[in-house]
Amino acid sequence: MSDPIDFYFDFSSPYGYLAATRIDAIAAAHGRGVTWRPLLLGAVFKISGQQPLTTIPLKGSYAQHDMLRSARWYGVPFKIPTKFPVNTVAPCRAFYWQHDKDAALAKKLALALYHAYFAEDRDISSPEITCNVAAKLGIDKAALSAALNDVAVKERTKNEVDAAIERGVFGSPYIVIDGEPFWGADRLDQVELWLEKGRW
Amino acid sequence: MSDPIDFYFDFSSPYGYLAATRIDAIAAAHGRGVTWRPLLLGAVFKISGQQPLTTIPLKGSYAQHDMLRSARWYGVPFKIPTKFPVNTVAPCRAFYWQHDKDAALAKKLALALYHAYFAEDRDISSPEITCNVAAKLGIDKAALSAALNDVAVKERTKNEVDAAIERGVFGSPYIVIDGEPFWGADRLDQVELWLEKGRW
Repeated sequence: MSDPIDFYFDFSSPYGYLAATRIDAIAAAHGRGVTWRPLLLGAVFKISGQQPLTTIPLKGSYAQHDMLRSARWYGVPFKIPTKFPVNTVAPCRAFYWQHDKDAALAKKLALALYHAYFAEDRDISSPEITCNVAAKLGIDKAALSAALNDVAVKERTKNEVDAAIERGVFGSPYIVIDGEPFWGADRLDQVELWLEKGRW
Repeated sequence: MSDPIDFYFDFSSPYGYLAATRIDAIAAAHGRGVTWRPLLLGAVFKISGQQPLTTIPLKGSYAQHDMLRSARWYGVPFKIPTKFPVNTVAPCRAFYWQHDKDAALAKKLALALYHAYFAEDRDISSPEITCNVAAKLGIDKAALSAALNDVAVKERTKNEVDAAIERGVFGSPYIVIDGEPFWGADRLDQVELWLEKGRW
């Protein structure tokens, strides 16, 4: 089996959510695993001078329309969250804490957090809500709640975000296959072709 | 036959170029015509506060890589032009002038200008080069050259750009089907589905 591919995403990114529902199946069809790497887009945007898509004149209202239409295209439940975007430090820390215990469960947690935010309009920036979503999966709520303020978990998360920025990741979703970067859920067709035959 | 779909693009837009090579065939497969509407993205960006993609930190170098890879994906010849982006007032005026005489020939001219810029690295911001590209298609070079400075042609072009901005067009390519907007060459798959069955 070749190296896993890297899947970078922010928990507040609608297109990250859409890609998250497919990326493992796409990779598995080509005998590849996927390493999920949540990041904090706010930190990235500070460097690249970007703004959240929905706040840009003209583009913003189109973006909301496109998110809804693309979600229907993917067949994925989706509402524009009441609060958008949100700070995703809590989900991000929860993910890495869980990842180091059980990577498969961490992916389930990520999908559940995405679903809570984009399908159920629950504000996952809240540590309490993040912990509740985790508890539904059988994750120890008290342990997670403590972990969210644990110095080592904070450091682990920060290092991941720094490493992503170092690598040039500037958006979500952002997928890297053997060094080849693909930005956006709308590059999943190119991701598939790359997995199939490499450079074309 | 239903109403034609609207295809907005800037002559300096690589993804506009890629979409231009396919949009008529996609529409024709569903019994639809296409009205091509070149615009001046510089004027649009002033309003929406955007910058050319390649000038944005991090995103810029990825964008160049993605353009090349996407062009190979489309099977379309492509080089990053030496001067990019360029002012596309001359190609835009040439298009509308030609369009009012012979719309089919205007599309051929648009494709030839795109090819000159993105495949042959010719600076189509130059009125002289724009006229030379047109002359190759049998268009009267002297007449076109005069038209580029004609008040009526300038006004016609300005009105088209203003109408596009008024409609909320903020990028290239931007396709509108019966009022439904699609931004980006990577929405051509959704454009096809919309033409096939309307809203999903």
